[in-house]
Amino acid sequence: MSAPRFHIIYRITPDDSRPIEAHAKDICLEETVEIPGDCVPPAIWEAGIVGQVEAISPCPAPSPAFDVAISYRADIVNDSIPNLLNVVFGNISIRRGIKIIDIRLTADQLRAFGGPRFGIAGLRERLGAYGRPLAATAIKPLGLSVQELARLAAGYALGGLDVIKDDHGLMDQPFHPFKERVARLQEAIRNANAKTGRKTLYFPMVSGRFDQIEDQMAFAAAEGCAGALIAPLLIGPDTGFHLARKYGLAVMTHPSFTGTHFHDPEHGMTPAMLLGRLFRIFGADISVFPNAGGRFTFTPKECRDLAIAMQEPLGDVRPGFPSPAGGMSIERIDSMVAGFGHDAVFLIGGALMRHSPEPEAGARAFITGIEKAVSARKAAE
Amino acid sequence: MSAPRFHIIYRITPDDSRPIEAHAKDICLEETVEIPGDCVPPAIWEAGIVGQVEAISPCPAPSPAFDVAISYRADIVNDSIPNLLNVVFGNISIRRGIKIIDIRLTADQLRAFGGPRFGIAGLRERLGAYGRPLAATAIKPLGLSVQELARLAAGYALGGLDVIKDDHGLMDQPFHPFKERVARLQEAIRNANAKTGRKTLYFPMVSGRFDQIEDQMAFAAAEGCAGALIAPLLIGPDTGFHLARKYGLAVMTHPSFTGTHFHDPEHGMTPAMLLGRLFRIFGADISVFPNAGGRFTFTPKECRDLAIAMQEPLGDVRPGFPSPAGGMSIERIDSMVAGFGHDAVFLIGGALMRHSPEPEAGARAFITGIEKAVSARKAAE
Repeated sequence: MSAPRFHIIYRITPDDSRPIEAHAKDICLEETVEIPGDCVPPAIWEAGIVGQVEAISPCPAPSPAFDVAISYRADIVNDSIPNLLNVVFGNISIRRGIKIIDIRLTADQLRAFGGPRFGIAGLRERLGAYGRPLAATAIKPLGLSVQELARLAAGYALGGLDVIKDDHGLMDQPFHPFKERVARLQEAIRNANAKTGRKTLYFPMVSGRFDQIEDQMAFAAAEGCAGALIAPLLIGPDTGFHLARKYGLAVMTHPSFTGTHFHDPEHGMTPAMLLGRLFRIFGADISVFPNAGGRFTFTPKECRDLAIAMQEPLGDVRPGFPSPAGGMSIERIDSMVAGFGHDAVFLIGGALMRHSPEPEAGARAFITGIEKAVSARKAAE
Repeated sequence: MSAPRFHIIYRITPDDSRPIEAHAKDICLEETVEIPGDCVPPAIWEAGIVGQVEAISPCPAPSPAFDVAISYRADIVNDSIPNLLNVVFGNISIRRGIKIIDIRLTADQLRAFGGPRFGIAGLRERLGAYGRPLAATAIKPLGLSVQELARLAAGYALGGLDVIKDDHGLMDQPFHPFKERVARLQEAIRNANAKTGRKTLYFPMVSGRFDQIEDQMAFAAAEGCAGALIAPLLIGPDTGFHLARKYGLAVMTHPSFTGTHFHDPEHGMTPAMLLGRLFRIFGADISVFPNAGGRFTFTPKECRDLAIAMQEPLGDVRPGFPSPAGGMSIERIDSMVAGFGHDAVFLIGGALMRHSPEPEAGARAFITGIEKAVSARKAAE
């Protein structure tokens, strides 16, 4: 049987004394035919419908884990994000000790999912910004009037930030309804751009219910927004990617509601695979993640691996920007440049407010910080 | 400020030496304004936009945890499932040691989300089945021809099962495309019903991409299917509920891709809150879950709590059926009746295949097993 197959590497930490081969076979059956092996009809085995163990290698001692490569027929997924997630981590999400550490789709699958529409090169071209990390902030907090939110957006744009996104909690609340908010913020940024000659990009949070979200995405595009901020696990893993592509918007992904994958190092998906590899394949031009040393739990290595997953060669899929965030500050820019290099979108939110009550001043300090860090790094090379 | 508020009970296991009050305040800020407390404008505090700690109580020793009640303004959620999930467990999903153990929405929120359209009473009425658990199976495995799948469906319906669902891996694959499969299986079940005078209900798996799924749901309704099987975290937490309501279909929920919430008893949501309370509020007439003693990891207490969450009084929300599954067998019916009583949908899949190659015989044995268990229980009372 020569149907194309793709591969997932699971790090399995056995939770009982059965041999690793039995655990691997469990996954092969559970994620496809969902019946005991001796009930699978011969024709189903022969057609390669059941997952197949391709390799098993023990992790270095003293780890009790094994890295197990399992292949699945690509047409089971049929180029659908819900199908893909179901096959690679559906029912087994409810078992124990299974971590996805690598996802290797076929070249045809990568082309079908499509990856970032703009990617690093495309966004740099739109901004005319080269040779440095991009500077981004979030418009917040929840509950401000639309006028106050627009004043912040204008100030950040006048101060020279590259990317302005909504705080991801700004959805469609009665105190700042989606359409009014998006129209006024995009207008404020457009007016600021006309003054500065810059091209600050706005990514509103698009997170409506099923019956609202296409209208919201179309509205953001019609207002001239450059992209959309989406939280894939809140609105549906494929919903925002599909709609952003349909309406020509760049995509910035947010990790809200993803964190249970990362809590246990022995179960779930790694940050690199979920927020990096998969979100990039699905279409993330920029993937926001909580950087080490902020308010969250990622380790420096997890953050580096995620950044690599956004940028490494991957078939025809464009590289995207990793966007370290979550408690970052102007004082940390040097270490962020050291850690992520130039191809990253640095996202500083609350700390800009703390720096100055005037958003323009905060933005200028941020940009200056990036320029200094880049110069220092060049001088050191 | 008198804006209505809803309440979440978080069981917090502190991961550092700060007082519990500091951990609780972290959640209040993180899930709403996402800026440091001293940066929150006074008007935002006064408006009650920030989450508020309502109560803190230590868990019995030796547990280091505390149960913390936090209230949020209801209009932040604005009757949207993505908004709700973001406020109650968005960014904090990426922190440590936070378990949602109770979710108390306002009566208005419960009415807006709507709950099951049919519920236990409505499905019993459609079936004419009272005073016993319902018998359900899954059509499988993935990869069989549509003809073979339809033969199984016909046999199970002739044998008297109440509910027939697709295996959740049957999506829209080229070897059994959605529309052909759903039309032929519903036809097979309709023909069997005409012979038996029964009303076996069919729940096809509806899991298409954003651009396909409304058409699929409408097709299932037009073909006369009673309901849809949906995996909310694969297609979007609100997508399937919204569409099933729009097209008048009952909802059976599947837990695929939810399991990272349950892996760590100190983090995520409990099975009762995610698969029970929330899925019921969103519209689940039947919630499938992996019963204790099968292939998965839920404890007997977790399963009981989930069943209670589907059935306990909850404003105007109808009770729904818990559906224990995941490695159940005819031999276990007695213990399932003892554990879940009559208001449950027992789901036996692979074990029916093992019982007999003839689906009709397996179904009859299943129904007989339920009748015997119910009689034995009545005799013992």
